[in-house]
Amino acid sequence: MSGRFISLEGGEGAGKSTQARLLVEALAARGIEAIITREPGGSEGAEAIRELLMQGEVTRWSAHSEALLFAAARADHVEKRINPAIGAGIWVICDRFLDSSRAYQGVAGGIDDAAILALHGFGSRGLLPDRTFVLEVSIAQGRARAEVRDGAAADRFAARGDAFHADVAAAFRRFAEAEPERFRVIDAGGDVASVHAAILAGLRDLLP
Amino acid sequence: MSGRFISLEGGEGAGKSTQARLLVEALAARGIEAIITREPGGSEGAEAIRELLMQGEVTRWSAHSEALLFAAARADHVEKRINPAIGAGIWVICDRFLDSSRAYQGVAGGIDDAAILALHGFGSRGLLPDRTFVLEVSIAQGRARAEVRDGAAADRFAARGDAFHADVAAAFRRFAEAEPERFRVIDAGGDVASVHAAILAGLRDLLP
Ligand SMILES: Nc1ncnc2c1ncn2[C@@H]1O[C@H](COP(=O)(O)OP(=O)(O)OP(=O)(O)O)[C@@H](O)[C@H]1O
Ligand SMILES: Nc1ncnc2c1ncn2[C@@H]1O[C@H](COP(=O)(O)OP(=O)(O)OP(=O)(O)O)[C@@H](O)[C@H]1O
Ligand SMILES: [Mg+2]
Ligand SMILES: [Mg+2]
Repeated sequence: MSGRFISLEGGEGAGKSTQARLLVEALAARGIEAIITREPGGSEGAEAIRELLMQGEVTRWSAHSEALLFAAARADHVEKRINPAIGAGIWVICDRFLDSSRAYQGVAGGIDDAAILALHGFGSRGLLPDRTFVLEVSIAQGRARAEVRDGAAADRFAARGDAFHADVAAAFRRFAEAEPERFRVIDAGGDVASVHAAILAGLRDLLP
Repeated sequence: MSGRFISLEGGEGAGKSTQARLLVEALAARGIEAIITREPGGSEGAEAIRELLMQGEVTRWSAHSEALLFAAARADHVEKRINPAIGAGIWVICDRFLDSSRAYQGVAGGIDDAAILALHGFGSRGLLPDRTFVLEVSIAQGRARAEVRDGAAADRFAARGDAFHADVAAAFRRFAEAEPERFRVIDAGGDVASVHAAILAGLRDLLP
């Protein structure tokens, strides 16, 4: 049987990476082999593209170049890592995926959602997760969590203001409303264990 | 007045780089400011993407990832270098451009010409050269010229066989036939000076 493909989405500091690790452990405890991966990156080629995306000034890449680079990285990730795992019956837990491109390039770059989806259709044959969790926290809470974790370190995305993060959160909510089968919106403002429990509950219909 | 945008295309060793240099000099002698640039590359971001494309195994990137990376590099090159120059009245002589993606990714990767053009429409708003010269030499001649120049050095593209290079040459010829206004096919088998003269002749209608 094919493995399931699960993505975790949400703003900075929402708890995606934390919950991805807990989910892999919970699946292992149920005898389900699962791997954790992330975007941009997740395969050798995609990680090399990630370096290009993450380094340098916020304005290093135009919105269009950035969207193409994300699509190229995702194509490599899907082909080299995600599809082989799923095909081998292994679940794939992905820390950010397509919907982050839709939210960030859409909001920051004004790129049409249809164009992002077209690039994904071309590069990755439109592969969609079986389930996508949107972790929702207030912007202040996300920022506070990220600051505790990172201290003063900041990358190109973390340098944005509150209005930007609010627009990103609204975009994720719109995507979830448009595809209720695929998405589950999770209140991620509680403690780690309760968020984890909500994610497991939102996965019940996919568990064997 | 806007500068003109000229691209040079053709197989490996055809003489594109040699002719690009001569053309810039000939334009300068006519009082026309011109710059020379190349693809993949030509701007800081695009050169970084070029490194990803040129290094590693022939199979490092899938055809789809490669097409996306070329489109990303070209978008950066067009935005940061080509369009600013043209806008300032400077002519741009480009050593390979879109048509190389169409030929190489089309032939090597089996990517639809329409898909390559769609990526170019997205990334670079479909910018086309005012004139494109296809330099035609026999495969043996191109290879001999490249070997004299490079010795044993080879990159990912140079490692291909004769049938591949023949298919690429046929693709360039098809593009030229489909767009006779933009293209001029040049017999590049003669000496450097005669090829240069043929290129200048093919540019006469664009010269002031
Ligand atoms: N439910 C929670 N309650 C309190 N702290 C949390 C919770 N979830 C995660 N954290 C902490 O908040 C910080 C950010 O969490 P995490 O790195 O998982 O977020 P993220 O969504 O992956 O962020 P980014 O988008 O920046 O990668 C970490 O220090 C983590 O330990
Ligand atoms: N008309 C010509 N006659 C003989 N030699 C030539 C001619 N044009 C170029 N050469 C030589 O052939 C070699 C290849 O030329 P050049 O580098 O200009 O080709 P190119 O099309 O840019 O190749 P590549 O696709 O590998 O970049 C160089 O050593 C150059 O000096
Ligand atoms: Mg994270
Ligand atoms: Mg050359």
